[in-house]
Amino acid sequence: MDLNFTEETLLDDGVRERGFLLGDIPGTLWSPGSERAPLVLLGHPGDLRRMHPRLAARARYAVARGFAAATIENPGSGDRPRTPALDDARADLRRAVQTGERVPDDVVDGLVLPLVDQAVPEWQALLDALPGIDGRVAYTGGIISIGVRLARVEPRIAAAVLFAGSWVPRAVVEEAREVTVPVHVLLQWDDEGNDRQQALDLFDALGSPEKSLHANMGGHTGVPEHAGEDADRFLERHLR
Amino acid sequence: MDLNFTEETLLDDGVRERGFLLGDIPGTLWSPGSERAPLVLLGHPGDLRRMHPRLAARARYAVARGFAAATIENPGSGDRPRTPALDDARADLRRAVQTGERVPDDVVDGLVLPLVDQAVPEWQALLDALPGIDGRVAYTGGIISIGVRLARVEPRIAAAVLFAGSWVPRAVVEEAREVTVPVHVLLQWDDEGNDRQQALDLFDALGSPEKSLHANMGGHTGVPEHAGEDADRFLERHLR
Repeated sequence: MDLNFTEETLLDDGVRERGFLLGDIPGTLWSPGSERAPLVLLGHPGDLRRMHPRLAARARYAVARGFAAATIENPGSGDRPRTPALDDARADLRRAVQTGERVPDDVVDGLVLPLVDQAVPEWQALLDALPGIDGRVAYTGGIISIGVRLARVEPRIAAAVLFAGSWVPRAVVEEAREVTVPVHVLLQWDDEGNDRQQALDLFDALGSPEKSLHANMGGHTGVPEHAGEDADRFLERHLR
Repeated sequence: MDLNFTEETLLDDGVRERGFLLGDIPGTLWSPGSERAPLVLLGHPGDLRRMHPRLAARARYAVARGFAAATIENPGSGDRPRTPALDDARADLRRAVQTGERVPDDVVDGLVLPLVDQAVPEWQALLDALPGIDGRVAYTGGIISIGVRLARVEPRIAAAVLFAGSWVPRAVVEEAREVTVPVHVLLQWDDEGNDRQQALDLFDALGSPEKSLHANMGGHTGVPEHAGEDADRFLERHLR
């Protein structure tokens, strides 16, 4: 897929933020002064406009450490065309969560597996198309199942920082056994919207000889600053 | 109880290591040049001689950050008189572990509760007796139940770094709900001698608004260097 830059902003701390289209997928690249740098992929739950402040904050941390950072819109989210099948699956999941009962596996599978199947090749296309990328790449953030699949199938991924907090199909827990790169999992322990046991099962399944789980308090979006710094140091260790 | 220094060694990095007797309890104090410093208590599974290399390594990290570090022998361990009741309870636990079945609660209680009841007032006596101690104190290490009880009852404890990896009575899990100081729990995820679920239950029970769980690979004694550094930074944040 072709990548075309559509806009450019120079942020006040010298970070260059460029919007692009990868085919028809919107995305953003943040880069430091240097031309070639290790790359941090910023995963997210979807809707780049809504997520921009948080993504830009994560990107600035990455760039401050000499990395580039990039993200693309999720399938069926934000400015991308709706996908009726994904919309239906999202509605099914929302209804299942509202019952207060354990969400049935087939409802989780019905949303997350098609999303992963479509999104992972798009992230790979981004790696093919982005200019100025040094050898090493890390995936960071959610949707955690996208990170697991990408770490399993894409040899350019050298490490992953995964945010627990989304639903994980059992099939993805099984895939996690084949992941071998270093993985750092962030879990918000008191996040009521998160299936904590599922996150622990996924962490346990990961095949990586080097893996760490950091659990903290503060709710879904309240990752403490020190936890972000620990994750940054993990990236430092594995992208240099 | 009186504290009397019995020997002094100046280590090659300028750390002052002093042996002492607190009443008849052997202990060691490591201190930096400065006279008054925050204090890191070094908990351990028992037998100061056997544990000395690992304790001295932990102490040097603490002193390098400007803290003093101190430890005392556990009841019935090392050079302290045997306690037939504790010896019997240890033998019961060993036999229970060897069956490969879940260790019954009463066997865990039979060893750990008397140990905690005896050890915690001794650590408090140490705080009363140690000279040159600044206001803030942290308990670090195992036996995790000693750390929980001490954090609950002793107001001089400002923070705790707890090593999961010993048996925890259900009563101590309940006590953990009344702990309010910041706690950093280290869990070796692949430690076969450790009841992982018990460690997760204890972490969940802790009443502390600020608590972190860091799980890593590497076996019981294989805490990675970066995990030790994260714990040091936790102490920096809470003892300054």
